[in-house]
Amino acid sequence: MKALGYYNGRIGELDEMMIPMADRVCWFGDGVYEAHLCRNYHIFTLDEHVDRLFSSASLLEIEVPVSKQELKDLLNELVKKMDTGDLVVYYQVTRGSGKRNHAFPEGKANLWVTLTPKTFVPSRDPVSLITDEDIRFLHCNIKTLNLIPAVMANEKAKRAGAYECVLYRPGNRVTECSHSNVHIIKNGVFYTAPTDNLILPGIARAHLIRACEKLSIPVSETPFTVDDLKQADEIITSSSTNPCVRACKVDGRAAGMQRQDLFDALYQFIMDEYFEATK
Amino acid sequence: MKALGYYNGRIGELDEMMIPMADRVCWFGDGVYEAHLCRNYHIFTLDEHVDRLFSSASLLEIEVPVSKQELKDLLNELVKKMDTGDLVVYYQVTRGSGKRNHAFPEGKANLWVTLTPKTFVPSRDPVSLITDEDIRFLHCNIKTLNLIPAVMANEKAKRAGAYECVLYRPGNRVTECSHSNVHIIKNGVFYTAPTDNLILPGIARAHLIRACEKLSIPVSETPFTVDDLKQADEIITSSSTNPCVRACKVDGRAAGMQRQDLFDALYQFIMDEYFEATK
Repeated sequence: MKALGYYNGRIGELDEMMIPMADRVCWFGDGVYEAHLCRNYHIFTLDEHVDRLFSSASLLEIEVPVSKQELKDLLNELVKKMDTGDLVVYYQVTRGSGKRNHAFPEGKANLWVTLTPKTFVPSRDPVSLITDEDIRFLHCNIKTLNLIPAVMANEKAKRAGAYECVLYRPGNRVTECSHSNVHIIKNGVFYTAPTDNLILPGIARAHLIRACEKLSIPVSETPFTVDDLKQADEIITSSSTNPCVRACKVDGRAAGMQRQDLFDALYQFIMDEYFEATK
Repeated sequence: MKALGYYNGRIGELDEMMIPMADRVCWFGDGVYEAHLCRNYHIFTLDEHVDRLFSSASLLEIEVPVSKQELKDLLNELVKKMDTGDLVVYYQVTRGSGKRNHAFPEGKANLWVTLTPKTFVPSRDPVSLITDEDIRFLHCNIKTLNLIPAVMANEKAKRAGAYECVLYRPGNRVTECSHSNVHIIKNGVFYTAPTDNLILPGIARAHLIRACEKLSIPVSETPFTVDDLKQADEIITSSSTNPCVRACKVDGRAAGMQRQDLFDALYQFIMDEYFEATK
């Protein structure tokens, strides 16, 4: 298949797939999701993402209609149907179907999968960032389908010719980006926002922290500000589809790019891990 | 028809309607909506709701694919297809379709309508409320499909046997409920939260304010707190499907119910207006 769509057991070409209007995603965006990379038909970091999906679902009292193992088996099986093994594997669970009503519905949750071709091309090319106020809801630790603020922030970045939009809360505290975490290096220390309710506990973030530990780079999980970001020695964004990206500019001004050695070491660690696991 | 679903020109029984998986509602909840009452095939407050839909869409840079007049004509035409003229008229616009990508898509937005039978039964019976922290995003003035926090708050109310959940921001400032506005009367003054970015500018709220003006009840559009709510003489919630509801209890304790005269006058005004317009 070229791009696959799966919905509660039905499978088809993604752009021909239809879903019931009664799915609560249509009225409330009522669901949680995961998206990550597959290379050579090996799904990268599958256990961690499936764990997080179940955690997100549990925080919203959505019962995933399959076990973790069944979900992993399904994803591995679906991947085999594809013309290429270089993919973004995306899956979500929505809180069932029924008449539009805020109250939780009777009946089972719905399971969705999409597989779309994407070849991950590693790149050390630095990117530009912009900053904007973080107006999102206060449970950003849950990976939900309520993504309008992320859509708007991303569009703002795109129009500014930037790669990502860094979000900040009152007091200029940096949280994360529209669809990435963001970290800084200052005086040799790797700073990243703590995993409270204001950021998603990124899987790539966790891998970067592990890389720091292996490379003896001290890690501080403490909040930092927009000023700290702009004065950092290095700025790195991470997401599951782009796990280690270096920034050279924030809001149109040069920033970061002072510790090539540390960036290179982290980047290499993350790439080695990815290519080793998916060879 | 029993319950009608409409999607970009296709019409069918609601529970059989399918929509493309590529609609951005599926991945981002990326759309805005309206829901209100129809009686005897007369759609109540249609102009105001269509205006607000266009306003919500505009704030998110979604271009509604029809004009206001075309939308009104469509709704009036669809209503005629129904077995009953007592309905909830629901419609939404989603930001087009395409591959999952935060960036705005090429192509037109999608127009959805549902019509579901509902006979509005006026009631003066007072209800119970609970209170909870308002964790929603900071553009609650836009009526979006990102409704997970409203779903969770509503479920909390339902489990507590309450009609609605009153939300409050830091400083215990009351904003609104999970799907209603909330107002209080104290010392003869009608207090309602100002229409900033923290509340939806309710159509029923606007009608209540107009009723106050007609009835010479002073109106103050100023924030009030949970304590103010609990010590109010009267507590009234309003939504387009339930425009004037009296509360007698907040968080399990007796509250309000001290100005029957003012509640009755407002209630009667709103009901007269509704039944006059839809007779």
